[in-house]
Amino acid sequence: MIKAGIVGGTGYTGVELLRLLAQHPEVQITAITSRGDAGMLVADMFPSLRGKVSLKFVAPDDARLSDCDVVFFATPNGIAMQQAAALLEAGVRVIDLAADFRIKDVAEWEKWYGMKHASPPLVAEAVYGLPEVRREAIRTARLLANPGCYPTAVQLGFMPLLEAGLVDLDTLIADAKSGVSGAGRKAETHILFAEAADNFKAYGVHGHRHLPEIRQGLSLMAGESVGLTFVPHLTPMIRGIHATLYARLKPEVDPQSIDLQALYEKRYGFESFVDVLPSGSHPDTRSVRASNTCRIAVHRPQGGRTVVVLSAIDNLVKGAAGQAVQNMNIMFGIEECAGLLHIPVLP
Amino acid sequence: MIKAGIVGGTGYTGVELLRLLAQHPEVQITAITSRGDAGMLVADMFPSLRGKVSLKFVAPDDARLSDCDVVFFATPNGIAMQQAAALLEAGVRVIDLAADFRIKDVAEWEKWYGMKHASPPLVAEAVYGLPEVRREAIRTARLLANPGCYPTAVQLGFMPLLEAGLVDLDTLIADAKSGVSGAGRKAETHILFAEAADNFKAYGVHGHRHLPEIRQGLSLMAGESVGLTFVPHLTPMIRGIHATLYARLKPEVDPQSIDLQALYEKRYGFESFVDVLPSGSHPDTRSVRASNTCRIAVHRPQGGRTVVVLSAIDNLVKGAAGQAVQNMNIMFGIEECAGLLHIPVLP
Amino acid sequence: MIKAGIVGGTGYTGVELLRLLAQHPEVQITAITSRGDAGMLVADMFPSLRGKVSLKFVAPDDARLSDCDVVFFATPNGIAMQQAAALLEAGVRVIDLAADFRIKDVAEWEKWYGMKHASPPLVAEAVYGLPEVRREAIRTARLLANPGCYPTAVQLGFMPLLEAGLVDLDTLIADAKSGVSGAGRKAETHILFAEAADNFKAYGVHGHRHLPEIRQGLSLMAGESVGLTFVPHLTPMIRGIHATLYARLKPEVDPQSIDLQALYEKRYGFESFVDVLPSGSHPDTRSVRASNTCRIAVHRPQGGRTVVVLSAIDNLVKGAAGQAVQNMNIMFGIEECAGLLHIPVLP
Amino acid sequence: MIKAGIVGGTGYTGVELLRLLAQHPEVQITAITSRGDAGMLVADMFPSLRGKVSLKFVAPDDARLSDCDVVFFATPNGIAMQQAAALLEAGVRVIDLAADFRIKDVAEWEKWYGMKHASPPLVAEAVYGLPEVRREAIRTARLLANPGCYPTAVQLGFMPLLEAGLVDLDTLIADAKSGVSGAGRKAETHILFAEAADNFKAYGVHGHRHLPEIRQGLSLMAGESVGLTFVPHLTPMIRGIHATLYARLKPEVDPQSIDLQALYEKRYGFESFVDVLPSGSHPDTRSVRASNTCRIAVHRPQGGRTVVVLSAIDNLVKGAAGQAVQNMNIMFGIEECAGLLHIPVLP
Repeated sequence: MIKAGIVGGTGYTGVELLRLLAQHPEVQITAITSRGDAGMLVADMFPSLRGKVSLKFVAPDDARLSDCDVVFFATPNGIAMQQAAALLEAGVRVIDLAADFRIKDVAEWEKWYGMKHASPPLVAEAVYGLPEVRREAIRTARLLANPGCYPTAVQLGFMPLLEAGLVDLDTLIADAKSGVSGAGRKAETHILFAEAADNFKAYGVHGHRHLPEIRQGLSLMAGESVGLTFVPHLTPMIRGIHATLYARLKPEVDPQSIDLQALYEKRYGFESFVDVLPSGSHPDTRSVRASNTCRIAVHRPQGGRTVVVLSAIDNLVKGAAGQAVQNMNIMFGIEECAGLLHIPVLP
Repeated sequence: MIKAGIVGGTGYTGVELLRLLAQHPEVQITAITSRGDAGMLVADMFPSLRGKVSLKFVAPDDARLSDCDVVFFATPNGIAMQQAAALLEAGVRVIDLAADFRIKDVAEWEKWYGMKHASPPLVAEAVYGLPEVRREAIRTARLLANPGCYPTAVQLGFMPLLEAGLVDLDTLIADAKSGVSGAGRKAETHILFAEAADNFKAYGVHGHRHLPEIRQGLSLMAGESVGLTFVPHLTPMIRGIHATLYARLKPEVDPQSIDLQALYEKRYGFESFVDVLPSGSHPDTRSVRASNTCRIAVHRPQGGRTVVVLSAIDNLVKGAAGQAVQNMNIMFGIEECAGLLHIPVLP
Repeated sequence: MIKAGIVGGTGYTGVELLRLLAQHPEVQITAITSRGDAGMLVADMFPSLRGKVSLKFVAPDDARLSDCDVVFFATPNGIAMQQAAALLEAGVRVIDLAADFRIKDVAEWEKWYGMKHASPPLVAEAVYGLPEVRREAIRTARLLANPGCYPTAVQLGFMPLLEAGLVDLDTLIADAKSGVSGAGRKAETHILFAEAADNFKAYGVHGHRHLPEIRQGLSLMAGESVGLTFVPHLTPMIRGIHATLYARLKPEVDPQSIDLQALYEKRYGFESFVDVLPSGSHPDTRSVRASNTCRIAVHRPQGGRTVVVLSAIDNLVKGAAGQAVQNMNIMFGIEECAGLLHIPVLP
Repeated sequence: MIKAGIVGGTGYTGVELLRLLAQHPEVQITAITSRGDAGMLVADMFPSLRGKVSLKFVAPDDARLSDCDVVFFATPNGIAMQQAAALLEAGVRVIDLAADFRIKDVAEWEKWYGMKHASPPLVAEAVYGLPEVRREAIRTARLLANPGCYPTAVQLGFMPLLEAGLVDLDTLIADAKSGVSGAGRKAETHILFAEAADNFKAYGVHGHRHLPEIRQGLSLMAGESVGLTFVPHLTPMIRGIHATLYARLKPEVDPQSIDLQALYEKRYGFESFVDVLPSGSHPDTRSVRASNTCRIAVHRPQGGRTVVVLSAIDNLVKGAAGQAVQNMNIMFGIEECAGLLHIPVLP
């Protein structure tokens, strides 16, 4: 059994990790920390876990995390970068669900996250954990940077197009819509029910922190720098991200000569958690609710030169905790799907 | 492996049965029927099942249901009563998720359901499948009447009080609230999103079909006929039932001398799927979402003579498909929890 | 024109007052205060008011409220009781939308609200502003205590029964369901979208602050003390309260001899804002959304001795700001419906 | 008083017309037709109208619509084209809220709407009723084609850019999100609450009927044919459309030399129902809920060459019934804002 610790277990990412790990056949959760709620039964905060998780939150100093095989950071940005080094030194593998190790360009990271980075060398070492791209590197990673929710949906959606070099790289557009849990379990006015229900809006059009992360990933796929317009929106649902992606075929590409459906099916044919829908489909977010699957459909409306890709994930699973478990499975050489076979909850 | 067939798999009860049975370690789904959608892949109707269920819907006549060990009817009322006899004769055990066999008084049934009953003898034979009450009879049942959603929440909530003879039987009140999936997957105007969202209303105050079913169950618990006022409400959520139950302590009962919390904890102490919350709690429906658990809290506000019981279930799981699987497990002598250990999905 | 000031305009009650008063034909809003947001344009906080309200929030000390004809307190509990005396002395009439002056028994108030009352004499003077009960007293009130949202729905629902002396006073039950805006515009975790959506729960079963207020009102109607069980619930909608009320006919009342429908229609026949629905109806909250109307239906299920009353209001209008404007209209001798004729917004 | 008739009043567009016209100071609703519900009180179908609308639905043949000054068609596509000629001949002005007269190219219309057009000459005569573009023509129109909901949001958002000739016309993208009421009050499975709640999806990516309407409007603004990719989405809210629009500055345009904010403010400075938000804003749909306003913000993220316009309307008001009333006001020479001054309902 893999002994797993969780740092910061009181947010939505944390409770979702608990849900997945508590049902995982090869994991034992040995510690979960919370500075503010130490001593409280986890199941008192989250009654959904009654009878399933008997742990109490412990203060970080009492957690003996160095006895774990792996520690997940489900913390705000800026925590893991301060604590990872000591754990790694103790031989613990670290998976950070926050953004501390996602962006290789430290100056860029510091600009977008508004703080000084505490351990640039670890940024260099960290492996960006999108298994469909970096599976081999993940196997041996000591320190894993788990991707953001928007970046997962957008990168998986664009990847086959970019790898095949079919589309113009200057004019990529990602119009993404997120459920409200993506904003976290924080007491903030704008995500109150009476503010966010029966309402729809864009936010961060001037620049969202996931932009540089997505741009970095897409540029690696394309082999050169890409220009991306990224507009996130808040939509009145609990879970789910739907990314609608737009790209223009390069002038030299003859639309009649390419089969985008086949391209996508081939690229993801051996992937357990990416499902390419039949031609003409529209994935809905509930078809992936509470599961680790990304469902994708690719369109070329009216036979034109604009490609439209629809990509849907559960932001808390494939967009956070589920992908972290998938990465753990790879890192520890067990079945990649272990503990992740849940059927989506519909309706 | 238990070979299971499903008659009528295109409603919410059907797709939930599929979700549970497809993940059940000891079940093989061998057939699923639909008159209207025969030939269609189940996963084309419910993309959440892609990669999990490879069956097609088959026409009822082509289904070879008599080869099954058990057949579930997830059909409208009035179907199972016509087809159960032949299956039973073929040695197949039958679990009806509709109401055909729930009410022992056939005349009463015919009054509330507005049709002539096709097989009164089977009504007499059928076992009412509330495991917490009838577990022994369920073990050997050939024909099982799976309880309604409201009746499950209300009966489990009232049971300890009635069995202990503590409350007045003439003035029981069940104020119940259901998510919209309880109305089924039918194209009807009043359950459209634009009608049911951001809205709340009572319905059927003059008399709802679940009233005689609940009254029958409560009367059996009490050992005499009970008077019940039952008011169902439609609440803008997908899944979940919350029953708020009111009962008056009998005049001869001294409130100081009884410990309702202990009474409930004792009654349900060995039940896997009934969770009595600590004193002072308020179960929310999401704490049981997508799980087979019923969570209950018992209150006596201001130390008075009115007992208030709060009972929450997922209407599609403990209120329908999950309880059907629980009953199947009992009938086939396997672990009662098999295939039902999912942790509720929160948030 | 009536010069109106608003103290504390950044909550939902405040913005709803602004919506109503800005469209009121005989009112001019002259000042709106906010300690935290002084200097900000009201329309910058609430873009719905762009082009409709040009005021800025001002600090309380700069507001010159004593020049107003009427001041509304849309503040947390405990503010109006400290500021009302000075305003009254300056000849300003005061309408408090919080709870400071609602409960005549000051000791009881202090117990439930957990603070010392700053001006008991004003409690004695204040008029409880439920127009359907106290219209004459309201006309001449200097200080008006605007009723709570639950108390409005529950009192209007029970009133005809209590005034007529038809029901047992010891066993009244009010099972009430509120939209989430009833909890206010406060950054608290439990009313986040991802907590409150697709969820339903009771709260405060042990005792809610509106209990003593309702009990006081019902006791006045009945002419003697009543016993009431009050259970509030949180339901995933923005606006609306639905109260389901239960009462037992007194033993001496012959159910055949009474016509509850006629009783209700007669009692409310001349009321502009109470609409008794036809026999057999179920009011839904959206039928009163954004309007000052209370819709009521009265039932006696299965012809029994339990009366069920359904009462629906918009918690922010008839349950708060709209009723405050109705009271203002009465106090200033203008048309009671002035500024309150909006048709509910459906769907 | 303008005598107004409504043909087909049982859908959401119809009930919204009733809400607006019943409060309009210069309109008298004289007839409302419904084939299926003739004889029923309008307020029995829509209790929100109790006490506000006393009419009954009448059969089309009994409606004496030729006595009206104006008749609104709130019918499915294909009805108005059969009945408009007779009304026009009788001197009645006609406003069609469906699509019969929106597209000038009859062959194109027939392709997208799948039926033969009954009166091509009236298509030629009809005025497309987007007041911000065609106000002068609307004044004298006998037959008015009221724009679709998506087309209104998209055209108002793109208009200043196209009129100024600033952007590439081949690569326009409109990513639009609609509340579920946009699908109408029809008993269809996919818009049930349990299907559409807590869910998000695109639809009609291959081609939506509003595409040719939008393309026609944009082409007129641009003075030449435009290439547009239009992707509509269904979002779990009742009312509201949010269009996120993307356009590329032409190569010859120097981004530093243009002030998009000023361009938009100038273009809409005298428009009562288009509100250009301050630079950096994100309009949310609730800020226009139940009002006739369109709120727009214009962005150029990261100072690049992609312009992003955010455009929000209430699909039932500015996207349907409200715009129809606005057009009626213009046609009859009364105040354009008459009956349309409602403040949006927030929260």
